[in-house]
Amino acid sequence: MTSGRSDNAPIRYGMVGGGQGAFIGGVHRIAARLDGAFELVAGALSSDPERARASAVELGLDAERSYASFADMATAEAQRSDGIEAVAIVTPNHMHWPAAQAFLKAGIHVICDKPLTSNLADARKLVDLVEASGKLFILTHNYTGYPMVRQARDMVAAGELGTIRVVQAEYPQDWLTTRIEDSGQKQAAWRTDPAKTGAGGATGDIGTHAYNLLRFVSGLELDSLAADLDAFVEDRPVDDNAHVMLRFKGGAKGMLWASQVAPGNENGLTLRVYGSKGGLEWHQEQPNHLWYTPFGEPKRLITRNGAGAGPSAARVSRVPAGHPEGYLEGFANIYAEAARAIRAARQGGRPPAEAVYPSVYDGLEGVAFVDACVKSSRDDGAWTGLDLARG
Amino acid sequence: MTSGRSDNAPIRYGMVGGGQGAFIGGVHRIAARLDGAFELVAGALSSDPERARASAVELGLDAERSYASFADMATAEAQRSDGIEAVAIVTPNHMHWPAAQAFLKAGIHVICDKPLTSNLADARKLVDLVEASGKLFILTHNYTGYPMVRQARDMVAAGELGTIRVVQAEYPQDWLTTRIEDSGQKQAAWRTDPAKTGAGGATGDIGTHAYNLLRFVSGLELDSLAADLDAFVEDRPVDDNAHVMLRFKGGAKGMLWASQVAPGNENGLTLRVYGSKGGLEWHQEQPNHLWYTPFGEPKRLITRNGAGAGPSAARVSRVPAGHPEGYLEGFANIYAEAARAIRAARQGGRPPAEAVYPSVYDGLEGVAFVDACVKSSRDDGAWTGLDLARG
Amino acid sequence: MTSGRSDNAPIRYGMVGGGQGAFIGGVHRIAARLDGAFELVAGALSSDPERARASAVELGLDAERSYASFADMATAEAQRSDGIEAVAIVTPNHMHWPAAQAFLKAGIHVICDKPLTSNLADARKLVDLVEASGKLFILTHNYTGYPMVRQARDMVAAGELGTIRVVQAEYPQDWLTTRIEDSGQKQAAWRTDPAKTGAGGATGDIGTHAYNLLRFVSGLELDSLAADLDAFVEDRPVDDNAHVMLRFKGGAKGMLWASQVAPGNENGLTLRVYGSKGGLEWHQEQPNHLWYTPFGEPKRLITRNGAGAGPSAARVSRVPAGHPEGYLEGFANIYAEAARAIRAARQGGRPPAEAVYPSVYDGLEGVAFVDACVKSSRDDGAWTGLDLARG
Amino acid sequence: MTSGRSDNAPIRYGMVGGGQGAFIGGVHRIAARLDGAFELVAGALSSDPERARASAVELGLDAERSYASFADMATAEAQRSDGIEAVAIVTPNHMHWPAAQAFLKAGIHVICDKPLTSNLADARKLVDLVEASGKLFILTHNYTGYPMVRQARDMVAAGELGTIRVVQAEYPQDWLTTRIEDSGQKQAAWRTDPAKTGAGGATGDIGTHAYNLLRFVSGLELDSLAADLDAFVEDRPVDDNAHVMLRFKGGAKGMLWASQVAPGNENGLTLRVYGSKGGLEWHQEQPNHLWYTPFGEPKRLITRNGAGAGPSAARVSRVPAGHPEGYLEGFANIYAEAARAIRAARQGGRPPAEAVYPSVYDGLEGVAFVDACVKSSRDDGAWTGLDLARG
Repeated sequence: MTSGRSDNAPIRYGMVGGGQGAFIGGVHRIAARLDGAFELVAGALSSDPERARASAVELGLDAERSYASFADMATAEAQRSDGIEAVAIVTPNHMHWPAAQAFLKAGIHVICDKPLTSNLADARKLVDLVEASGKLFILTHNYTGYPMVRQARDMVAAGELGTIRVVQAEYPQDWLTTRIEDSGQKQAAWRTDPAKTGAGGATGDIGTHAYNLLRFVSGLELDSLAADLDAFVEDRPVDDNAHVMLRFKGGAKGMLWASQVAPGNENGLTLRVYGSKGGLEWHQEQPNHLWYTPFGEPKRLITRNGAGAGPSAARVSRVPAGHPEGYLEGFANIYAEAARAIRAARQGGRPPAEAVYPSVYDGLEGVAFVDACVKSSRDDGAWTGLDLARG
Repeated sequence: MTSGRSDNAPIRYGMVGGGQGAFIGGVHRIAARLDGAFELVAGALSSDPERARASAVELGLDAERSYASFADMATAEAQRSDGIEAVAIVTPNHMHWPAAQAFLKAGIHVICDKPLTSNLADARKLVDLVEASGKLFILTHNYTGYPMVRQARDMVAAGELGTIRVVQAEYPQDWLTTRIEDSGQKQAAWRTDPAKTGAGGATGDIGTHAYNLLRFVSGLELDSLAADLDAFVEDRPVDDNAHVMLRFKGGAKGMLWASQVAPGNENGLTLRVYGSKGGLEWHQEQPNHLWYTPFGEPKRLITRNGAGAGPSAARVSRVPAGHPEGYLEGFANIYAEAARAIRAARQGGRPPAEAVYPSVYDGLEGVAFVDACVKSSRDDGAWTGLDLARG
Repeated sequence: MTSGRSDNAPIRYGMVGGGQGAFIGGVHRIAARLDGAFELVAGALSSDPERARASAVELGLDAERSYASFADMATAEAQRSDGIEAVAIVTPNHMHWPAAQAFLKAGIHVICDKPLTSNLADARKLVDLVEASGKLFILTHNYTGYPMVRQARDMVAAGELGTIRVVQAEYPQDWLTTRIEDSGQKQAAWRTDPAKTGAGGATGDIGTHAYNLLRFVSGLELDSLAADLDAFVEDRPVDDNAHVMLRFKGGAKGMLWASQVAPGNENGLTLRVYGSKGGLEWHQEQPNHLWYTPFGEPKRLITRNGAGAGPSAARVSRVPAGHPEGYLEGFANIYAEAARAIRAARQGGRPPAEAVYPSVYDGLEGVAFVDACVKSSRDDGAWTGLDLARG
Repeated sequence: MTSGRSDNAPIRYGMVGGGQGAFIGGVHRIAARLDGAFELVAGALSSDPERARASAVELGLDAERSYASFADMATAEAQRSDGIEAVAIVTPNHMHWPAAQAFLKAGIHVICDKPLTSNLADARKLVDLVEASGKLFILTHNYTGYPMVRQARDMVAAGELGTIRVVQAEYPQDWLTTRIEDSGQKQAAWRTDPAKTGAGGATGDIGTHAYNLLRFVSGLELDSLAADLDAFVEDRPVDDNAHVMLRFKGGAKGMLWASQVAPGNENGLTLRVYGSKGGLEWHQEQPNHLWYTPFGEPKRLITRNGAGAGPSAARVSRVPAGHPEGYLEGFANIYAEAARAIRAARQGGRPPAEAVYPSVYDGLEGVAFVDACVKSSRDDGAWTGLDLARG
């Protein structure tokens, strides 16, 4: 499939989901486009045929490469000499597994939105299939793409905070404060439908982001968690607020709060990490800033590409300090890492050592996190470990 | 004792504890002095006789009213025609009960630092004695004296946030990140000694402040809590980090985090309250600001004495908006409320309706909170209610 | 030249300047790519032939469309049936005029970095040529592309601030605090060379941005200015700090500060506008926030795509509130407006009414601003008007 | 007059002005009371006899020491054995000189609100009289009392910023945005009446604070200024907005902005100082924070009593880092310095070396600053020096 492509030619990719009215599909397309490393050439953009067709026209796809289903797309593209090298899956959660399965079996790399799947059984099957397929799988936990998140991770790994003791993660939003899922708001409708989103509401939608972020930065491994989940809006069948206490192997502790009913919060993802020698603080809504306090010294503001920032942040930055980069650039960094890995695979190689992206294993852990939260909460907050057992 | 005093004459008071090297005693003295409503005339300033004497000289007390013990002071002052009308107890926690007992029995009003006592048994006895004595008892949970905290409380009570769903309280500090209790730092030494501070470390010292604040503002009553306490610094016999999940009567939920090992935090007490109609956010380190978001509208900054602030905040403010008031002014507001109550009592009356101050019942609840945290943590985070039983 | 292109086909464009080692060229390329509306097909990327060639390879240009000079490129592309429709000029300032001249004469639309030219004579000629050519000319004063800047402009125009009285604009940086122009730093070298940058240093490089921004938002027209320019770094032949007082027609007043020697500032562009009914405040480093105070009410935080933001901001936003957009997205908005205008021109039409972008007239005014600052400063701060005379 | 007083006995003082309805008098009284170093025993609290009497009762003054005029008070108190040692003058500006004159002639130390006088002639006479009297004169430019302002000054003096190049000072407010002086608002009425406030409005009321602050911290001496003053509110006879460019001896430059018509600003006094080696930034509304950037390193947050703060800040701090001190504490620090000087004078000594307070010379310079602003503005912004000539 990669014959005839130069190393640096744009990667041909297709998209499943992301038609008109969707949110995250457009984000993936911009992220893929930002560095010129991807070219969108095919799509199964909607389960609604009319919407799929209209969306394809709007995006300038060839009509013959706008497919009625992801299954058709996987089959047809695998047979084309100019077929897609990768697919971006941006559907509601319950479709991640069947779609990923089709493309992996067709020998096509997969870039998939989070959470990995809507349930743990699917997640396990997906891990197995990725391993069996030998294809790449990139999960778009996009917050790990922010330069200052990379910086934070490196500082922790380098021991600048000493032994990590406490991690506080939170992701408050307010958009589900009222029952908008009844109003025809498509995003709200599927995210509050357990058949599509899975057993966790806020837990799955944003709690997994917060969990993934704290794992990525701190490197800590979870021992167990105690969760208290609520649906504050009447008749909402999944949680819209999650309180979680965390115990890590080695003795560190943490708290995680995810809420979609906290008025005044838009996307307030925040991570704070405290160790025996210092502390770090990062806010998604001001992502170019990382606050670092070596214990006993004044707090310092490390800025993206500014004084104090290291090479791992610079590597994923595009403009000088003081010119803010944002959500799309962070997301694009995941695509840029994916591009490096896919180009290496064109040559039959492994992803370059410095390419960092969330994997199918991170995805399994995320689904296990949701599962453990739901179980713990049903069990009155009992300490519950992650079920990372395979197949 | 109050004969011959005009209504507005300064209140004669004495102090137990607060000698040289102490911290909070000096704060109480400034707070008492700020509005000119109190006059310090007696003291048992230290258990060390030499330090007691030197401290009394420094403060300009008459030598004969510098006492060797609180017991002597209670006895002697009760017999003087110009004896103290109130006492401020600013000792380590374990001495609150015996000192309060002596003065209440001597018919002297008590102003006492928090937590109420170092254990629940003492707290119960103190409540009983206050009731039996008919004297006033004011607990200096000083953060309730901040004008914008009053404002927040009124907004919640007025229904501006709708039904309260979620409360997030935290009080991170970093001063106990290392083992300074061995270094001769007096504040650290007694605060990490369970015989003096009680069973809770960070929980008692600052967790009770955070708990009291959330109770004061939200008006919610606790159903039960699940706590995970840690002493991260080696060989520290009390907790220096507390993670607590909260369940309130009626279904609201909350989290509370208190830490003394979080580098980069000085006194980061923060309260966030979210309801069905809006949210509030307040930070102790920028106390003149209250952030209010009516759901669906832009976030608003309400400032002390500025547009949007109401009479309950104005009542305890001294200078115009934009001229910051701070910790001492908030503390002084507790003393000002105490003065109003004591002056009313001079006339045989009740405290004026608008005078708001933390009571012995708040104190009992605070000690019960610490007790419940310690029990829950020992019981692996089991949901635990407050033991508010009396006698 | 545009025959055979569908309305929505990407616009073929070329670039002058922007080879390896340059900064702003890469920004233009990302901005052009972000929405998929442009396709880079030609370039005269460097005056150094080797660098031009290597840069073209890196960008995937066809070798035959990598030109040795902008003159060759203008000639050759004008003759191709698939020739470029637009050119992006991203050279040092002194080359803007000759390059723009070549392309306009060849019938090619021009997108040009600011300031318009390095001197007023060139600027006048360019305005005349643009008018004569009938081609589009878009100046990338990119800060006008930020959604909240559009929001601010609309609020002023709608009278929400009442009569504007005071405008405070500033753009502090610190990167020229020391004499790095000697160190081989290419960006610093040409920006401190009057032959390339023009008579104004900080004034031309960033002062023009601040001036353009305040004009764009406030709608005020300058009457005269009084400037005090300095070069604080020894032997620097252009200003690195500019203090300017502003008088507007109708009586409003303002201040403008531009500095490249203010340690602790990265790109601190800030605009504050005050009227008889309210005030606005915007900071480039947190561009998704606009602070609005209706006089006598609490300050409000208007966020991009959040509550309180209107259609002119939404029109140039890509992701939901709370997911920060940054510098590249704002820059891309200028390219998106350019695309709308170019596509309209393909059909022989005028740019759509809502397409807002800085024009050659804004550019002339910017150069006149620099000129007036330099003159006023030489004349001991005398009040000096803008010389907007033509040809 | 001071015979029989111990070194540390409270200083007996009286007050001129500050009766009911005044603002700054109450501030002075709290500031004097905060550290227990002063005792208010006399007053000529209002030019209105009834208000004077009522105010004296409210403040608990002996009836015989509530005077009908400052002249009576100066005469009577000078003759008492327990007469006042100092007077606080808190009247509108035009009364500063006559009141100060009376008390200095009576041998009583003077603490006086700013600006020194309402005109330059009075200021000169006052300087002469202070020198002739040998009494202490303390001007309450209270912002110099903030601990982090002391810290900033020390850092500049120690060379941590290198050679100072640029100073940006501003003091925006919004309370005079509309014509409230007609509404009976006493503060607004006299501050907009040139007969009482002097020739400068915002310039005198808050511009002098900003000017004094920048002088205090930077140590720079003014060479000349260019000012553009406006009264934006109709028929207001004094300026409500002042734009000023500053040239300092040695080549540093600055800008100063004072406004009372900038909606959204309460007391936004801000100082930024930039040198060849670093920069500082301080905001009055968050006074416990000082931002320091050593050029080429991350920005640092120095907090009052926190890491990085030195002895000059600690000396005037009362509570630990993270417990905010505010406006009243800063004001009280001026009184504390005054107390140290007065107590030294009791013993016939000079003020202790470390006691730092604004002097009558600072006051003269402030009035000369207002005078120069008014002159420069009338002269179309001509560069104007300070007239510091004496007598």
